[in-house]
Amino acid sequence: MPLNDALKRHKTELLDALKADDRACLESRLPELRSADIAEILQDLLEDEDLLRGRALLERLPLERRASVLGHLHGEEQLAITEALGDDALLAVLEEMGADERTDFYKLLDDDRREALLRRMARQEREELKRLASYEEGTAGALMTSDYVAIPAGMTVSRALMRVRQTAPDAETVYQLYVVDTEGRLAGTLSLRQLMVARPGARVDDLMIHDVIHTSVDTPQEEVARVVARYDLLALPVIDEARRLVGIVTHDDALDVMESEATEDIHKGMSIGALEDGVGRVPLWSLYRKRVTWLVLLVFGNLFSGAGLAHFEDTIAAQVALVFFLPLLIGSGGNAGAQAATLMVRGMATGDVGVRDWGKLLGRELLVAGSLGLTMALAVAPIGVIRAGEAVAMVVALSMIAIVLFGSLLGMCLPFVLDRLGWDPATASAPLVTTLIDASGVLIYLSIATLILAG
Amino acid sequence: MPLNDALKRHKTELLDALKADDRACLESRLPELRSADIAEILQDLLEDEDLLRGRALLERLPLERRASVLGHLHGEEQLAITEALGDDALLAVLEEMGADERTDFYKLLDDDRREALLRRMARQEREELKRLASYEEGTAGALMTSDYVAIPAGMTVSRALMRVRQTAPDAETVYQLYVVDTEGRLAGTLSLRQLMVARPGARVDDLMIHDVIHTSVDTPQEEVARVVARYDLLALPVIDEARRLVGIVTHDDALDVMESEATEDIHKGMSIGALEDGVGRVPLWSLYRKRVTWLVLLVFGNLFSGAGLAHFEDTIAAQVALVFFLPLLIGSGGNAGAQAATLMVRGMATGDVGVRDWGKLLGRELLVAGSLGLTMALAVAPIGVIRAGEAVAMVVALSMIAIVLFGSLLGMCLPFVLDRLGWDPATASAPLVTTLIDASGVLIYLSIATLILAG
Repeated sequence: MPLNDALKRHKTELLDALKADDRACLESRLPELRSADIAEILQDLLEDEDLLRGRALLERLPLERRASVLGHLHGEEQLAITEALGDDALLAVLEEMGADERTDFYKLLDDDRREALLRRMARQEREELKRLASYEEGTAGALMTSDYVAIPAGMTVSRALMRVRQTAPDAETVYQLYVVDTEGRLAGTLSLRQLMVARPGARVDDLMIHDVIHTSVDTPQEEVARVVARYDLLALPVIDEARRLVGIVTHDDALDVMESEATEDIHKGMSIGALEDGVGRVPLWSLYRKRVTWLVLLVFGNLFSGAGLAHFEDTIAAQVALVFFLPLLIGSGGNAGAQAATLMVRGMATGDVGVRDWGKLLGRELLVAGSLGLTMALAVAPIGVIRAGEAVAMVVALSMIAIVLFGSLLGMCLPFVLDRLGWDPATASAPLVTTLIDASGVLIYLSIATLILAG
Repeated sequence: MPLNDALKRHKTELLDALKADDRACLESRLPELRSADIAEILQDLLEDEDLLRGRALLERLPLERRASVLGHLHGEEQLAITEALGDDALLAVLEEMGADERTDFYKLLDDDRREALLRRMARQEREELKRLASYEEGTAGALMTSDYVAIPAGMTVSRALMRVRQTAPDAETVYQLYVVDTEGRLAGTLSLRQLMVARPGARVDDLMIHDVIHTSVDTPQEEVARVVARYDLLALPVIDEARRLVGIVTHDDALDVMESEATEDIHKGMSIGALEDGVGRVPLWSLYRKRVTWLVLLVFGNLFSGAGLAHFEDTIAAQVALVFFLPLLIGSGGNAGAQAATLMVRGMATGDVGVRDWGKLLGRELLVAGSLGLTMALAVAPIGVIRAGEAVAMVVALSMIAIVLFGSLLGMCLPFVLDRLGWDPATASAPLVTTLIDASGVLIYLSIATLILAG
């Protein structure tokens, strides 16, 4: 974590003060630190299994700060650090959290604890929490918060400003306001900026934008993040089936989604399933499971290359030197193919490449891959001559062009095919593509060898 | 691009109206569309090389809208669409753009055009543009805008609010205000939210946070984005060497950086250099160059596996069946190794994994990779028995464990080693890791084979 030096020093000082139980120092240092930084110190303590000191640190924070620090921790960490808190103390922290973070935390708790908390809540609060917790993970509904400023249609600017002042401490953002009709349906939006420069007697209906960019509760979170990015939004309003405004997704949550979705995509590119936590913290068993499935599947996939080789046993036995170039050829094809697949998968994920571009992209890949294959063939040919004579060199060079070209086209097309079949295009991972190219590369290479060397 | 259906319809209607030159329809449709959407229509026109219609569309927009649409285009597209504009017309558009977008566009122009524009500008404007254009690409300086609200220390709340109202239309964000001293140094920050609920006669100095999260002009943009994400900021102030406030990076720019850096990292993971544009638009020659360098380097790297095979020629000739399992073994090792490398590289990029975690991660990888190797050995053993007898099956199973274990540890350690050497850890791409594992896998496999089968 590239923290600046001042922050690193703050952290060391605070940890020392905690260890020495130096209350005076703690009292003076803690207010200077941001919640994200205190959360990181807590994470360090938890990683050293120093739960006692971690809880002591949390208890020293004012309630509001405690809630915000807690919001920066991962699920497992939140549970560990709050385990010893009584139900009333936990409820007090929960009530200070943002509605979205409160919901995420609530979902981690076991049934007994949930019941105990719900029983202590006011009815409206309880309904709200249950509603937010009901949306599926990874959707706009699970990401959104209900702490937004809604303004009834027909209100004047001066009254709307008063409303903003009153709700300021609670709302996630007061800078974008949402106008709702009597049914709670989203009717328009206006910014605090607009409100501030408007005539106090004007009505919000006359200022607002009617055609609001919005999303629905079941939209996948990566699409939510992309809409926020596309339109440079501070927040994106979320509506239910009845077009009622039920929440907003704020820019900072969109940024977090963008980062975690990128991590997931990068991992998928290597056939690693989505991890529920950082690679250093996720349980070993889970890490094993997320990696093993595809690895074992690909073991069976690779049997095809073995079968191909067995089929050409005589060619190999007659010219063992052919084997020397086998890893090189299938490796090169795999590399070029994985490149092509990665370019397509990422392009499709960012919306840069669509299915309708397929034809054009195929033409481009044909040219680029052809040039790549030719370059690589020229690089390998002299080595082939030196190590195994001209005939084998010719076989290797021709195979290089054919395998790189075939591999690239396969890598390029696979994501589109998977997409058509209703699969995630990211299933066209580097391991899958290289395994497919291993098998086909063996066939291409040894067919060319049999043809030329037998002739 | 997953646009909602209404947007798709809007687009089709607008394109039809453009083609039919239906002015009435255009006039009614255009104000309904967002700049990002009009920009996408323009991109479609440019892709179809319909420059004429693209320019006609741009000319139909009011000046402010024209600037904002232009800001959504890529560099090449901006140049193409504005090529026919006279210097005065271009200057008018430039002046409506945000300072950061104006600077990016200015940097694309050739010297003659730059001179012509500078000559037409007021002195202050010119200095400002030249200053912003002087920062290196990919740094906070190049990313920031100078359109922020600065408030002199000592101002009262009511005067600060007046200042906000006056600057509202120009500033990128009026929601976070920056207090500067008489030297222009960043002295504090406060939010519009704070300002709105404060007593009008209070002084901003008494409300502001003194210890402002900030960055310097030369901070890499990926770190800027990470700071914005970490502290959930609306904007991050940027200071120069003299601690003077020189700009801010807003949340929407941080989101764009997060997305483009993720794309760059994903491409790097396959040894593809950073593309200057989307994969469907980047020139073919550039795409070739960004892919060929490492591919050819790896051809030479793969010669080591060939040399290894040549060394064991006798073992292979004696037992050709060994070759059948070669792609499987080095492929499996490569897959497991590339997974391990990817997990580390991404963990280091997100700050989730640090060099100090190396020891702990090594222990974890040892356990996980050992289990993976064992599982894969169990999967392959029966096939080995069927296809080549018990002795070869034993060799293959033992080699699988050894190669997967070795490959995973290599893949895990390589990013750390590269980082120590001052290289980008992302250089430990899947193609590099698999090539290294190809060569070492050959040695491991055939050494074990020679040992066991000769015995």
